[in-house]
Amino acid sequence: MTSNGEQTVPVVVLAMGDPAGISPELSARLMADSSIHEAARLVVIADRRALDQGARVAGVTLDVKTIAPNAPIPTGLGPPVLVDLGHLDPSTIRVGEVQEAGGRYALENFKTALACGMAGAAQAVCFTPFNKSAMRLAHPSYEDEIVFMQEMLSLKSKASEFNVLPKIWNARVTSHVPLSGVASRINRTVICDALALTDAAMRDAGYTTPRIGVAALNPHAGDNGNFGREEIDVIGPAVNDAKARGIACDGPYPSDTVFVRAMRGQFDAVLTMYHDQGQIAMKLIGFDEGVTLLGGMPFPVTTPAHGTAYDIAGRGIANPGASRAAVLLAARMGRARMSAAKSAVLQGRSAADMRKLIAA
Amino acid sequence: MTSNGEQTVPVVVLAMGDPAGISPELSARLMADSSIHEAARLVVIADRRALDQGARVAGVTLDVKTIAPNAPIPTGLGPPVLVDLGHLDPSTIRVGEVQEAGGRYALENFKTALACGMAGAAQAVCFTPFNKSAMRLAHPSYEDEIVFMQEMLSLKSKASEFNVLPKIWNARVTSHVPLSGVASRINRTVICDALALTDAAMRDAGYTTPRIGVAALNPHAGDNGNFGREEIDVIGPAVNDAKARGIACDGPYPSDTVFVRAMRGQFDAVLTMYHDQGQIAMKLIGFDEGVTLLGGMPFPVTTPAHGTAYDIAGRGIANPGASRAAVLLAARMGRARMSAAKSAVLQGRSAADMRKLIAA
Repeated sequence: MTSNGEQTVPVVVLAMGDPAGISPELSARLMADSSIHEAARLVVIADRRALDQGARVAGVTLDVKTIAPNAPIPTGLGPPVLVDLGHLDPSTIRVGEVQEAGGRYALENFKTALACGMAGAAQAVCFTPFNKSAMRLAHPSYEDEIVFMQEMLSLKSKASEFNVLPKIWNARVTSHVPLSGVASRINRTVICDALALTDAAMRDAGYTTPRIGVAALNPHAGDNGNFGREEIDVIGPAVNDAKARGIACDGPYPSDTVFVRAMRGQFDAVLTMYHDQGQIAMKLIGFDEGVTLLGGMPFPVTTPAHGTAYDIAGRGIANPGASRAAVLLAARMGRARMSAAKSAVLQGRSAADMRKLIAA
Repeated sequence: MTSNGEQTVPVVVLAMGDPAGISPELSARLMADSSIHEAARLVVIADRRALDQGARVAGVTLDVKTIAPNAPIPTGLGPPVLVDLGHLDPSTIRVGEVQEAGGRYALENFKTALACGMAGAAQAVCFTPFNKSAMRLAHPSYEDEIVFMQEMLSLKSKASEFNVLPKIWNARVTSHVPLSGVASRINRTVICDALALTDAAMRDAGYTTPRIGVAALNPHAGDNGNFGREEIDVIGPAVNDAKARGIACDGPYPSDTVFVRAMRGQFDAVLTMYHDQGQIAMKLIGFDEGVTLLGGMPFPVTTPAHGTAYDIAGRGIANPGASRAAVLLAARMGRARMSAAKSAVLQGRSAADMRKLIAA
């Protein structure tokens, strides 16, 4: 806090993920990374013993303040803080294995972090990788992070997943559906909504006028209707609708050239019609540095795009680059939110208080 | 020819493409490239005046032997040869425009080159870019190169297009069909056939045991049937069929990681289920250096993957890299064919003789 009570950096709450994977060592590395301290006040939700074990694996020495769940969440510039939930003895976890205890641990960290976001004590939430199977053991209705958050936080708003690389963002109109069902799921409304969500999230992340290239659905963008008419009947009109709403988008472009155009500087983001259309490109462009942003929530939530990496867990060789990028994106977006709604910040609330917001 | 009459290098016949684009300058650059002479005897089918104009644009001096259409096609090591069909005054062509005369010119070169391939006077055919609209003006039923060749040469065999980059090949099961029609067009037979064609073409190109990664159709390879069952019901069984036939293939792998695996050295080729699945990756990996191979023909046919580039035609700035790679791939595959079927080489035949093989 400055002397006039103004918050100088956003609070980013980081939930430690699955303890059987690389999450403990990644969390420790992030807390030891002094370049993050200038961008955000990092508040880690974890068990002290699991974090210490992560620090040993990573070979880093941690200088962190540990606070109890019922202590107020700090604000302002300062070293990272650990909220020690004291809920996991790491010696009970088998490294590299899907376990209910691992899922339960990660889920509790995540719920606490989300509660901090909902209560306004954090401007953004970040988490290190979860294992979906472990999450399902701990919470059988767990589908994915977006569905879980919508359920936990009783959200009705549209939410969407973005893939973020240093030079390019990717959003998609459809996601986890069979390829045969993609065409019937795209229409003028969902495309225009996706463009509006992308535009809003990128403005939050600091883009003044994000330029969005829109991918076609069919090969050669349908070749003037020879290989499909969705470009003519659906995507083109949706792009025009979005343009009329002031969104700097263009397309549809053949999906094999729209990413090349973006990489050459023509676009800041690409909206794709289906999952692999974007993922093939994004993984080739930056397999190890991708960040997943869950947007359209009351606060931004980010995570590295990679998984728990059970195969290399505990060896200290996990690359923290994507996790660091996830925290920095959360900080950037949190900063926009901080200046937009300073008064919403509830000061002096503890993690335990806020955790009661999520009873489940 | 060596003293015992053995052919030492394959004959690659190059048909000059659309004269309104970059084909004349590319053809001239290829003829001036001495590194090609060691790999193949290059025989260019063109009009002398169009080639001279291309040489002026490219700024190269050509030392080529010009022969008449009724002169025998040479064999053996030696400088490039031009078969001058004398059928185009380049001053009648407007640079950068689709014209029937341009299509007619390119088509005549292509037919002559194909005839040389059919007659066995060339072991491989290559062409610089065509403009499809111009080809259609000259030959209204022109669909694409494969369909045209099958029609001209009365071929019944299965043919397929491959995209070739220095480190990776891509073949596809479906191509120019709407995305909504892809799933219904893949089945165990067509996938296994595509694997066999890919394996054969790559062996011709010098791979002893080509390793082929097979892409899934659905996101996350269907996630165990949650987002589609084609991986379980169709693609997996087809991969097993091909393995039983001795093909070194594996998969299906999620399409967003199969190219990353290939680039890391796990595969020499990727078989994709649909057009953009491969093209998104290949254009990102090597936009300017891609070669298109038309395989499954009686002889290999290659061309640079890029188009006529009307926008930069006549300025001397066109990059000849992909065209050079196309000639060298044709030479490599032609060499395999040369040793496999030396006796099929008809010596002493002229381009005009062979052109009669294609009456249209």
